[in-house]
Amino acid sequence: MIRRLAVALAALLLAPAATAAPPREAADLLVRNGTVVTLDSQRRVIARGAVAIRGGAVLAVGTEAELAARYKPRKTLDAGGGIILPGLVNAHTHAPMALFRGIADDQRLMDWLQKYVFPAEAKNVTAAFVRTGTRLAALEMVRSGTTTFADMYYFEDEVALATKEAGLRGVLGETLIEFPAPDNKSIPDALRYTEAFLKRWQGDPLIVAAVAPHSVYLAKPETLRAARELADRYQAPLLIHVSESMDEQAQVSREHGKTPVRHLADLGFLRKGVVMAHGVWLSASDRAVALEARAGIVHCPQSNMKLASGAAPVKEMLAEGQRLGLGTDGVASNNDLDMFEEMLSAALLAKLTANDPTVAPAAAVLEMATLGGARALGMEDRIGSLEPGKRADLIVVGSAEPRTQPLYDPVSHLVYAAKGADVRHSVIEGRVVMKDRVVLTLDEARVRREAAALEAGVRASVGR
Amino acid sequence: MIRRLAVALAALLLAPAATAAPPREAADLLVRNGTVVTLDSQRRVIARGAVAIRGGAVLAVGTEAELAARYKPRKTLDAGGGIILPGLVNAHTHAPMALFRGIADDQRLMDWLQKYVFPAEAKNVTAAFVRTGTRLAALEMVRSGTTTFADMYYFEDEVALATKEAGLRGVLGETLIEFPAPDNKSIPDALRYTEAFLKRWQGDPLIVAAVAPHSVYLAKPETLRAARELADRYQAPLLIHVSESMDEQAQVSREHGKTPVRHLADLGFLRKGVVMAHGVWLSASDRAVALEARAGIVHCPQSNMKLASGAAPVKEMLAEGQRLGLGTDGVASNNDLDMFEEMLSAALLAKLTANDPTVAPAAAVLEMATLGGARALGMEDRIGSLEPGKRADLIVVGSAEPRTQPLYDPVSHLVYAAKGADVRHSVIEGRVVMKDRVVLTLDEARVRREAAALEAGVRASVGR
Repeated sequence: MIRRLAVALAALLLAPAATAAPPREAADLLVRNGTVVTLDSQRRVIARGAVAIRGGAVLAVGTEAELAARYKPRKTLDAGGGIILPGLVNAHTHAPMALFRGIADDQRLMDWLQKYVFPAEAKNVTAAFVRTGTRLAALEMVRSGTTTFADMYYFEDEVALATKEAGLRGVLGETLIEFPAPDNKSIPDALRYTEAFLKRWQGDPLIVAAVAPHSVYLAKPETLRAARELADRYQAPLLIHVSESMDEQAQVSREHGKTPVRHLADLGFLRKGVVMAHGVWLSASDRAVALEARAGIVHCPQSNMKLASGAAPVKEMLAEGQRLGLGTDGVASNNDLDMFEEMLSAALLAKLTANDPTVAPAAAVLEMATLGGARALGMEDRIGSLEPGKRADLIVVGSAEPRTQPLYDPVSHLVYAAKGADVRHSVIEGRVVMKDRVVLTLDEARVRREAAALEAGVRASVGR
Repeated sequence: MIRRLAVALAALLLAPAATAAPPREAADLLVRNGTVVTLDSQRRVIARGAVAIRGGAVLAVGTEAELAARYKPRKTLDAGGGIILPGLVNAHTHAPMALFRGIADDQRLMDWLQKYVFPAEAKNVTAAFVRTGTRLAALEMVRSGTTTFADMYYFEDEVALATKEAGLRGVLGETLIEFPAPDNKSIPDALRYTEAFLKRWQGDPLIVAAVAPHSVYLAKPETLRAARELADRYQAPLLIHVSESMDEQAQVSREHGKTPVRHLADLGFLRKGVVMAHGVWLSASDRAVALEARAGIVHCPQSNMKLASGAAPVKEMLAEGQRLGLGTDGVASNNDLDMFEEMLSAALLAKLTANDPTVAPAAAVLEMATLGGARALGMEDRIGSLEPGKRADLIVVGSAEPRTQPLYDPVSHLVYAAKGADVRHSVIEGRVVMKDRVVLTLDEARVRREAAALEAGVRASVGR
């Protein structure tokens, strides 16, 4: 008792004069001991920073000293002196295709599709295949810093279930395509599937159900109109491939006498929440239309290079202030889901293409992979930066490798030197999904066994 | 005694009839339990393979069953079911610049040199700086699969000492440059330094001392002639930057009325063992000259993209059968020393540039990073493939990450999906230099402390 009194007295005497410390507010989690790269409106980088989280949302971002004084967290996560940043947004992929990694490299696009991808899909893609493929992809995404991904595939309900199981945020759409898919054999079937999918996932904290017509060349005008109408009824995003290759440009021009973007605009398809993947061959007037409609564009540099599709006009799109995100595309044309590599490739390719090394500086590329992706998806009110009120999606990049030293500028470091393997922790919707490189949501050994069991079938289907 | 007899009798009865097993030959090390990607003349890929090593050289490559029957190794190294391949050859870098990582991103080449690199070098580069920088770079190189690197810098004796300490193989040259360097203040000084350097390292198992005039634009004709003469006397390689940028082409054309390669050819500089870094702007006739002279060319795609120097004619050089290697260049323009990323970038860039996804297939790119690098350095009789008689430089790529699954084709996997962080073990000159990602030759914590102590000086010198 006397000891307690003495402690209280000492506290009183040592406290700053006349300011009783206010009681600390409760928080669920305090991520501390790191440099916070916020991506907030002032693009603050906070040394010795921290992020306080409650109810799956960011409560506050500031110095650790400030936040420790204001909040009493139930748990803390030690960033170990690393970099705390918004989770990366992979704004275009086909997650289950992880199981097709390396089946068809160094092929022309049409051979790649007709001789490898389509036959492999026809023979292998089932609900179980999609579930396992998404789990494998989810492990890879979490381990390389992705917290949100946008996906177009088949059996998309299985993608959603595996995504939720992994604790990842997903913007997911069943592909609407004008030939019999592994699950839905017609567009009316796929539209019915999509409507049930939209209903099922309404209000989910992690899953955003989308409507996903494949492209202008594989979705007829009436399909595109029905897709837009359905998406509007459920206030859902629309995912679509646009202007990926010169062949696509030529085909759409032959069939409709215009560019894919002009065709979409004339159909009344474009609006905020329309996510156009690739955009390699967008003209200046296409881009003006996209900007006016507030549609998103997703740059996929590695896939575009690997398939020799071309180099998107990144310099111009950055200057125009497009809603510009970054995506890996599927693993069959990448061959991984690593957004750190994608950032590096985006920076390097844009400089080379523009013949100007000042183009696509590190800050702009990091933004493409975070806030830009959020804007492309029409979700910038929820994700993409570390600011109070946004969902609490963040990653911690550590400095275990000699390669991470020296570190003169955290933003340069993230784009030009850091790798997916440097991601130590991942927090999504306030939940610690990976800690010290152990994914806490999925049983990794089991996923790998399940994936291994599917390899022989894939191998047989493409004669490998 | 009776038990021994019984065992001997059983062995006799169980042995194949009439064939007494020959006694097994001694070996120092057997690397076993992996798929061996040999890069030998038949480009064999051996499942359940192994490599036997003795006296720092490859003794045999084959299936594990064959080699276990023929050799009795003192030690074994378990590849854990991974891929065993020749160590990667980084055929152009400036290792000590690891300490300049990220000091000057997104800058025009001349600003990059004049405002950042040259001032930082003038104010920081000492013998101790070079030693520490090379140690840091060596850690990074070993950890990402490089076993041989070619280096041009200053205080090159320190580079050699640190390289030897790390157990890496180095082809190292003191830069001869027409302005006062941090160590040698004139070309005659630098030539004297180089001759002492060549003498000192003659016959070393790991260090190949080279002669390294910076470039045609920063080495006068008499310097180039003296360099060649000196190199010939010691049968040493010659390292030089050639045709990196359009500015260089223009300047050399103004001063000499020809291309850099033609200028070098006319001076009698070219021969096997001349290693021309970059080669971005080589014309068809330059390339014919290089091929005829058996000079090497080193493609540095990430540096060339980052500085917007251009895209080298890789499709053409592969078709011509050039001695074509791959290099990261220095960390100030990359910003790391990861040859896996360099392979990926080389493949992607060549496809995009040629507008053809079949160009630079995985096998050709893996060759650039191994045997091609060896050929570029004129060392294909010693390194670059796993074949009996060659020096025993190999790495093991593991499959710890979900990203490494599935693995349908080891060669595709190495170029398109594997990362530096997947390298588990490294063997150089028969010595295990890294085991289970622990570098055994350098004290990593100490190197990092030494490197950290130099950061403030670099920061001050470039106003960061």
